[in-house]
Amino acid sequence: MVFNWRPLSDWDASLVVGDAKMPLIVQKYGGTSVGSIERIEAVARKVQAARQAGNQVVVVVSAMSGETNRLIALAEGICRTPDPREMDVLLSTGEQVTIALLSIALKKVGCPACSYTGGQVRILTDNAHGKARIKEIDGGSVKEDLESGRVVVVAGFQGVDSKGDITTLGRGGSDTTAVAMAAALNADECQIYTDVDGVYTTDPRIEPRARKLDRITFEEMLEMASLGSKVLQIRSVEFAGKYNVPLRVLSSFTEGEGTLITFEDEDMEDAKIAGIAFSQDEAKLTIRGVPDQPGVAFSILGPISGDNIEVDMIVQNIAKDDTTDFTFTVHRNDFDKALEILKETAEVVGAREVVGDKNIVKLSLVGVGMRSHAGIASQMFEALAREGINIQMISTSEIKISVVVDEKYLELGVRTLHESFGLASEL
Amino acid sequence: MVFNWRPLSDWDASLVVGDAKMPLIVQKYGGTSVGSIERIEAVARKVQAARQAGNQVVVVVSAMSGETNRLIALAEGICRTPDPREMDVLLSTGEQVTIALLSIALKKVGCPACSYTGGQVRILTDNAHGKARIKEIDGGSVKEDLESGRVVVVAGFQGVDSKGDITTLGRGGSDTTAVAMAAALNADECQIYTDVDGVYTTDPRIEPRARKLDRITFEEMLEMASLGSKVLQIRSVEFAGKYNVPLRVLSSFTEGEGTLITFEDEDMEDAKIAGIAFSQDEAKLTIRGVPDQPGVAFSILGPISGDNIEVDMIVQNIAKDDTTDFTFTVHRNDFDKALEILKETAEVVGAREVVGDKNIVKLSLVGVGMRSHAGIASQMFEALAREGINIQMISTSEIKISVVVDEKYLELGVRTLHESFGLASEL
Repeated sequence: MVFNWRPLSDWDASLVVGDAKMPLIVQKYGGTSVGSIERIEAVARKVQAARQAGNQVVVVVSAMSGETNRLIALAEGICRTPDPREMDVLLSTGEQVTIALLSIALKKVGCPACSYTGGQVRILTDNAHGKARIKEIDGGSVKEDLESGRVVVVAGFQGVDSKGDITTLGRGGSDTTAVAMAAALNADECQIYTDVDGVYTTDPRIEPRARKLDRITFEEMLEMASLGSKVLQIRSVEFAGKYNVPLRVLSSFTEGEGTLITFEDEDMEDAKIAGIAFSQDEAKLTIRGVPDQPGVAFSILGPISGDNIEVDMIVQNIAKDDTTDFTFTVHRNDFDKALEILKETAEVVGAREVVGDKNIVKLSLVGVGMRSHAGIASQMFEALAREGINIQMISTSEIKISVVVDEKYLELGVRTLHESFGLASEL
Repeated sequence: MVFNWRPLSDWDASLVVGDAKMPLIVQKYGGTSVGSIERIEAVARKVQAARQAGNQVVVVVSAMSGETNRLIALAEGICRTPDPREMDVLLSTGEQVTIALLSIALKKVGCPACSYTGGQVRILTDNAHGKARIKEIDGGSVKEDLESGRVVVVAGFQGVDSKGDITTLGRGGSDTTAVAMAAALNADECQIYTDVDGVYTTDPRIEPRARKLDRITFEEMLEMASLGSKVLQIRSVEFAGKYNVPLRVLSSFTEGEGTLITFEDEDMEDAKIAGIAFSQDEAKLTIRGVPDQPGVAFSILGPISGDNIEVDMIVQNIAKDDTTDFTFTVHRNDFDKALEILKETAEVVGAREVVGDKNIVKLSLVGVGMRSHAGIASQMFEALAREGINIQMISTSEIKISVVVDEKYLELGVRTLHESFGLASEL
């Protein structure tokens, strides 16, 4: 069976052959979960349990924690900028070691298993070494193994290009491999095992009453990126959504159902808000007294994006004196460069002054329920106002409302919104 | 280009395309030679020098010393008898790390290079995991790289079977890979870099005046196995002889021409004797007073070889009383088992007694010149007799005479023969 990694609309549905009888799940275990012989043996027991519960199981694994860094150090011992093709040959051995060890551990617990490198699957990618994109997966041989009762153990993070050269997918690549395998095999669920037990309504380190979500939609998960990135690579969530693969986040170390990331359904309508996301990585820049004329936004933001700086929120207000004030946020790492560029721009366009502020945070309310419920925004602003938290910027999307506030209000703001929207669990 | 790994007589010579213009050499570096970043960089300089001297170069490398043992320990931490297929997936990462690092080091010294795993070459083997045999090599893509001026770096010790499963060739497999690559590419020479600077007339630890040989024939090298195995895996010598690949043994750590292993030519006729080999791994068993009747040899040796014990030298003497004495040697590790079997046989055939002796050594005189020179044997026996060394068994082949003597005569015997046949260098 060949699975073409194309947008859904281009799909030939007949290429995807599901198994009507037995559920097929793809499980992914990261570096920490396979970081020692003992942990690999624990993973083997989890996999065997899933198989004995009546599932066909594909397992995707990362390199043992520390291994990738060890290999990078060897290469950098020779050359500071090692050849990208050879780096992929080198780094791909990390996952290859894990697939062999896990297969050995599976057989020890009586579970027939067979390992596959990315090239053996075959996971065809483009040739962008170190950050390759999956183009196509030929899961034929994997399917045969599954049907003969074996667990299939696949090396994450790696593939081959059309010349047969080894490629790697870049950061979080094993999550992407898992989702791509799940899509290619038409799996019933893709389970990402991590060191947290699911997705929470907000960061439990800030709000101890944060509650684990049983379900969340792909869209919400994407908007919760600032929380979600601690759990899942955002790219794999996008892929899972695009290819309609139910994704579940669970803990490798504790029992539990984790959080299922899926499409919206009726049950979800009750919950207006999924959670409170926040970002401490932002900085704000304002250019004041810009003569208001057509093209002013481009003349200000053009040089910024021309220097590959990403702009997040943008607010423009008309001032009284026929000039305009223009405020936007960038990643805090880009603040100094952006400030410098903006000062040059200010001289060119004849603006009055440029000010910057790194001491801000962005708080976001996320939830698909927002679409059908008016008044969420006003409830949010009211809750913040009650605590005396001044809102500096506002930006809204269909399922998210974000505000920029002084960073000293981070904890208070998160807890206030969490309480106000009834997200807290009983302690 | 496809190279079929078949006996020479089956060859289709047109399949082998040599490059008429530029000499092509295959170099092999073992685990010690690539045991650290510094040593890998030293190898890169040697390879670059060979290329700058006007050669096309293919480099075959082993895993960094210690790496294979590290990987085995990981697997055995899970299971004492790990699955052979998965062991090959695991162990093959060792060489894959080396090819990447050496390619990075080559590029650093300005030498364009490209790495190949066994599967990428593609080195097709049978599916005997852990001891696979090479069946065919498709060197097409390697040849293209060479012609475009690149050095090709190949992982030794590994291949793939017809299903695409990773296989390993077993002990000394990287030597075999090098010879097979040299044969497939019709290379001008296959150079095996080791920690010794060549093949000696005998072991220099026993005879300090042992002399490095500039040349030796394949047949002599095979008969010198007991010396040669410290330098080269005997299987790769057999292959090199079979496929007519000139083989050179050199040191990774010092300069020098090493020893060329090749076919007999006129220059060699002068040297009657190439060297003195010896083996301390032998043990002798004698069954006395066996009723002399047809089939007696089989009734004695059948049960021994039936238990997978290899027999080396065999001597049978007719005794006076119509019985026969029968003596043979086995590997010392097999002595106890062989003695037990022989005692059972003695009862069955009605022999008088069984005696064994582990305190023996085998001394061998090796040289193709022996064929055309009579009197070598008598010169050997006379030299030993002069020193009072009693010969217990004798066996001869076309280019070798072996004797079994008490092990206390090992050093004296080797030095006596070395001196008697004029092998010593001036000290």
